[in-house]
Amino acid sequence: MTDVHDLTRRLQRKNDSKLVLLVSDGLGGLPLEPGGATELETANTPNLDALAAQGSLGLSIPVLPGISPGSGPGHLGLFGYDPLKYDIGRGVLEGLGIDFDLGPNDVAIRGNFCTVNESGIITDRRAGRIGNDIGQPLCEKLDKIEIPGVEVFVRHVKEYRLVIVFRGERLGGEVNDTDPQQTGVPALAPEPRDAASARTAEICTEFLRQAASVLQDDAPANLLTMRGIAKRPAIPTYEEVYGLRAAAIAVYPMYRGLARLVGMDILDAGATLDDQMNRLHAAWNNYDFFFVHYKYTDSTGEDGDFAAKVAKTEEVDTCIPRIMELDPTVVIVTGDHSTPAKLKAHSWHPVPVLLASNHCRFDGSTSFGEDSCRAGGLGTFEAKYLMIQALAHAGRLDKYGA
Amino acid sequence: MTDVHDLTRRLQRKNDSKLVLLVSDGLGGLPLEPGGATELETANTPNLDALAAQGSLGLSIPVLPGISPGSGPGHLGLFGYDPLKYDIGRGVLEGLGIDFDLGPNDVAIRGNFCTVNESGIITDRRAGRIGNDIGQPLCEKLDKIEIPGVEVFVRHVKEYRLVIVFRGERLGGEVNDTDPQQTGVPALAPEPRDAASARTAEICTEFLRQAASVLQDDAPANLLTMRGIAKRPAIPTYEEVYGLRAAAIAVYPMYRGLARLVGMDILDAGATLDDQMNRLHAAWNNYDFFFVHYKYTDSTGEDGDFAAKVAKTEEVDTCIPRIMELDPTVVIVTGDHSTPAKLKAHSWHPVPVLLASNHCRFDGSTSFGEDSCRAGGLGTFEAKYLMIQALAHAGRLDKYGA
Repeated sequence: MTDVHDLTRRLQRKNDSKLVLLVSDGLGGLPLEPGGATELETANTPNLDALAAQGSLGLSIPVLPGISPGSGPGHLGLFGYDPLKYDIGRGVLEGLGIDFDLGPNDVAIRGNFCTVNESGIITDRRAGRIGNDIGQPLCEKLDKIEIPGVEVFVRHVKEYRLVIVFRGERLGGEVNDTDPQQTGVPALAPEPRDAASARTAEICTEFLRQAASVLQDDAPANLLTMRGIAKRPAIPTYEEVYGLRAAAIAVYPMYRGLARLVGMDILDAGATLDDQMNRLHAAWNNYDFFFVHYKYTDSTGEDGDFAAKVAKTEEVDTCIPRIMELDPTVVIVTGDHSTPAKLKAHSWHPVPVLLASNHCRFDGSTSFGEDSCRAGGLGTFEAKYLMIQALAHAGRLDKYGA
Repeated sequence: MTDVHDLTRRLQRKNDSKLVLLVSDGLGGLPLEPGGATELETANTPNLDALAAQGSLGLSIPVLPGISPGSGPGHLGLFGYDPLKYDIGRGVLEGLGIDFDLGPNDVAIRGNFCTVNESGIITDRRAGRIGNDIGQPLCEKLDKIEIPGVEVFVRHVKEYRLVIVFRGERLGGEVNDTDPQQTGVPALAPEPRDAASARTAEICTEFLRQAASVLQDDAPANLLTMRGIAKRPAIPTYEEVYGLRAAAIAVYPMYRGLARLVGMDILDAGATLDDQMNRLHAAWNNYDFFFVHYKYTDSTGEDGDFAAKVAKTEEVDTCIPRIMELDPTVVIVTGDHSTPAKLKAHSWHPVPVLLASNHCRFDGSTSFGEDSCRAGGLGTFEAKYLMIQALAHAGRLDKYGA
């Protein structure tokens, strides 16, 4: 089957259009009661509603119907990369997110400090959620670990989270997590899933043996678990597949990492949406495409706080005029997945999409919500096709065939 | 992945049903202003609206969401052939469209007479749009060109357009266009894209060298450019994949060529829709399936003439009673793509589909338009599935599996 990017490589056309993809993480929701309104439908969003009247709505399926995506597949889909083709390990995402320059010989691992008792039983999977003031120096100690034949890098991410990178020849990236996802049991052994990863698993084991010694007096952070042990996949860039100079304005490491993976420049900004909008304005002339990421519709959804998610959705609404001041050719507002407060988790429900441009087939919508999106002109489609739609509406694709 | 035709070959069932596929080229449109009506929605189409009430509506995606198709992929999709699998060169389409019998050793090329100045710079890509009275004898002169080792055929198509065919052993069909798509520059050299086409490129170069000499006194048609240099692909016929004896009633060469490519008989008719309807009536007993092609909804769209496209859509409406007099089992009215007057070009927007038969699940529609199709019972689907739907509604498919 033809890869979507084989088409976009071949059909891409340059022009002066500007595209903005505003991702409100976990945007899609659920009503608390049958017949009720979702978070997005409950929120007072006059700017999004006005934009809906000028554009087309739809619902996107992040991976496949019924599949709840993590942040990685959710964003890759939005970026136009088949999330079933590009499977990106969590370790790689975390590494990219802290600006660690991962090379082809690197295996990256997401680490979590944890607390173990004298029998090696995990009593707290997040080491009492230690602060940066504790996590940072512990990572510096771990960074001194030496293992013959490989370089070892340990970098602090945030609080109890860290990244470990092993750099060496012929290291496979197929090793199971050691995090047992529960307390009351010991960590799992790092098990290789293929022959090429047997040595990687041995290196993980040796690292964990030394780490137990290094951290023995550092309770509650007296050990760590490993997750998402993986190598960086070969993934084509936005410039190559779409002909777009792309920039990301994202606060959280994970999303910066995802954007870097597809070749976006990462623009630093303050932590508020207003800071991000200022950065967007400042960088407007330097790029064709902007990915703006807003985290808090997801985190409030994961907290199960319906009212807080409504409030965060209303905050997203306030930035729309700042975007529209720039007169973008195409604006898309959507999420990478749904995070209904009712479920306190990422879900499989299709995600509202609003695409506004001068070339939309309008669908009579006057509000942006799950129900209006269900009847919208973009229909229900796999997220991986969103970027083609965006390029089409921006006049950046030639026609296919004579 | 299972090919659609593996299924239809296996499940096809013969009966006395008659199917009509009326393609109003470029049928889909856009409103000129947000909230406005499209060309189809503006047109007064009482017959189509009545048919909509007896059938099911839907929207078809010609290739993939966001991809604007040329006429070739647009029609192949409607005919049930995956347009991403069957990629057909323009030269092949033009050759088939003038009844040139292309064989497996033929490379076909679409030629355009052009005007060059004394420095070889193209000053008019269509040679002042010369008439047939000029183009025809120039093609006869060019047809006399001889190149050692290959047979050379030059045939006039229409006005400034011609077809060149090189017949010989081991000629690859992968050579780039020489048309630079702009004036003020010389034509491009014919560049091979693979080793097997190096000799084809040399033959193109030699032909163009001789043509410059033959045409030197024939300004404004004193040279030609080459486009869509290609060989005929292996494509299964309607008879084989669907068990249908199929006929095409199309005026323009391109569409006759497409129909011939999938094994349809080409029925000659006069140039008007009324002539085409007369031909349909005359041939009714001889075929199971009729493809009727109407060009002018596309050409008025490409002209950007909203009102003219509305008028041409109303002309299409007038032929519906002529079709229904024949009591067809299944009638489909659709387009091969959208050509919104607003965009003056083929677009990616999904195309309205009307399918009427006695076995429809009715959807309450009372008019045929983009908005009613969006809510229609056929849903939004890839065009390549339309023929399976047609066969099903005609009782021509057995069930799949026990």
